[in-house]
Amino acid sequence: MIETEIEVMFFDTDCGGVVSNIAYLRFFEVARTRLTDALGLTLAEMSETQLFPAVARTEVDYRRPARLGDRLRIRGTVERFEKVRMHCHFAMYRQEVGEPASLIAECRQVVVLVQMPEGRPRRIPEAWLDRVPGVARGGATD
Amino acid sequence: MIETEIEVMFFDTDCGGVVSNIAYLRFFEVARTRLTDALGLTLAEMSETQLFPAVARTEVDYRRPARLGDRLRIRGTVERFEKVRMHCHFAMYRQEVGEPASLIAECRQVVVLVQMPEGRPRRIPEAWLDRVPGVARGGATD
Amino acid sequence: MIETEIEVMFFDTDCGGVVSNIAYLRFFEVARTRLTDALGLTLAEMSETQLFPAVARTEVDYRRPARLGDRLRIRGTVERFEKVRMHCHFAMYRQEVGEPASLIAECRQVVVLVQMPEGRPRRIPEAWLDRVPGVARGGATD
Amino acid sequence: MIETEIEVMFFDTDCGGVVSNIAYLRFFEVARTRLTDALGLTLAEMSETQLFPAVARTEVDYRRPARLGDRLRIRGTVERFEKVRMHCHFAMYRQEVGEPASLIAECRQVVVLVQMPEGRPRRIPEAWLDRVPGVARGGATD
Repeated sequence: MIETEIEVMFFDTDCGGVVSNIAYLRFFEVARTRLTDALGLTLAEMSETQLFPAVARTEVDYRRPARLGDRLRIRGTVERFEKVRMHCHFAMYRQEVGEPASLIAECRQVVVLVQMPEGRPRRIPEAWLDRVPGVARGGATD
Repeated sequence: MIETEIEVMFFDTDCGGVVSNIAYLRFFEVARTRLTDALGLTLAEMSETQLFPAVARTEVDYRRPARLGDRLRIRGTVERFEKVRMHCHFAMYRQEVGEPASLIAECRQVVVLVQMPEGRPRRIPEAWLDRVPGVARGGATD
Repeated sequence: MIETEIEVMFFDTDCGGVVSNIAYLRFFEVARTRLTDALGLTLAEMSETQLFPAVARTEVDYRRPARLGDRLRIRGTVERFEKVRMHCHFAMYRQEVGEPASLIAECRQVVVLVQMPEGRPRRIPEAWLDRVPGVARGGATD
Repeated sequence: MIETEIEVMFFDTDCGGVVSNIAYLRFFEVARTRLTDALGLTLAEMSETQLFPAVARTEVDYRRPARLGDRLRIRGTVERFEKVRMHCHFAMYRQEVGEPASLIAECRQVVVLVQMPEGRPRRIPEAWLDRVPGVARGGATD
């Protein structure tokens, strides 16, 4: 499990006055990067090995609007591993002083480990499973 | 039903060599804008009335990678109306000469009509339903 | 000389209510792509040959704010060629009905033709000069 | 003077394999936000007062390519104040272990303090000048 903080900048908002639905996906990508980093695959390694985690499916539920200057916290977890796929969950919160944290948005992503430039799926390393105790490899789609 | 064309630019790709998962959401937003325009709500009007279609939920399935210079076509339809919500579907294709079109990505979005800056949901106008024959207003969540 | 049209989308604006200073650079990149295309280098070719026009310097003067739904026209020209560099100028206008076009922003870019992944500069092809009559190759910096 | 760190993400790169020229402007906007924050104008206040620092002119010199996973440092300073304008300079470095820092890009921006939604320029507060000792208010363009 990772936790990362995002501060909402001008370029994250739109003229509706709140954070653009597209910017959330950028925030969740930062969290996903921290998550694969925690599993043992750093950005620098990806750049060298051309082994990338590709998003096969994404779902976002937008719960409450976020605004300019908000400090948002994202918690990211792996929910399940399959042979070449990883199911991730991200929850984004805003913590205001003296109040309970409020849920801003939630995201689920299915990530496939892919060897570029061929685009061939690669098996999730055993070492990754070891780093997330209690999350089994499994799933009918394997 | 609307159809719109997108040409993949440099800023749509990432160093994996293909279109970034975030850029697709920008492409689908162009298509959604054409769809609300076809229903009778133009960008210029939104700007004046501050009545905006806000995305409450989005799902994207990434089927095949798109690349720099690809000309992609997106077809957008309304699948269902509720009192304040609209369910949209978008399919993105690449048409290569002498080949059947291949599906690049699919997207479903739940859109809520919202009056800003208060953020109050507004009823979907009857005129919108008239413009999409065969799509009923309905749904248990109303 | 090329001319291209841009329609301002939600994701181009920020919570100041106008187009974000960053989005303009995206608009100018679309125009630059049309310009190199007119010179004979298409996006599809770049993708294959890995010969890319890299921006070495950019200047933007923001004259008037653009807004959601605006239809902007960008005119792009080559001002001067050097051995490996090209000096481009872009002017962005908004044309309102019954009014003279107003200048929204201006951009100058120095573009270098670069062979990736090595990053080696390449000589501007003679054929490009032929396509822009009246613009000489020259410059003390060669 | 402020200093801020940026880690290059996937969405900052393009298929040329290096950071997109547009992403740099996003990085410099983060640094500019830290700079106005240090002067006493926070994002949260801007959101409330609708008093925004608008970019009137930007110049970027791209010196060396940055890559996925790079940790870049940006130093931002105010070079000069005018009545309603502020001249800023940003230098972006990459620090590699055991090597001198290398300059990646430089940026100069002219920022105007603007009251939205009217778009009226506002005088730079005296308190800002006090926070940057040695930088005089001045300039023929006032």
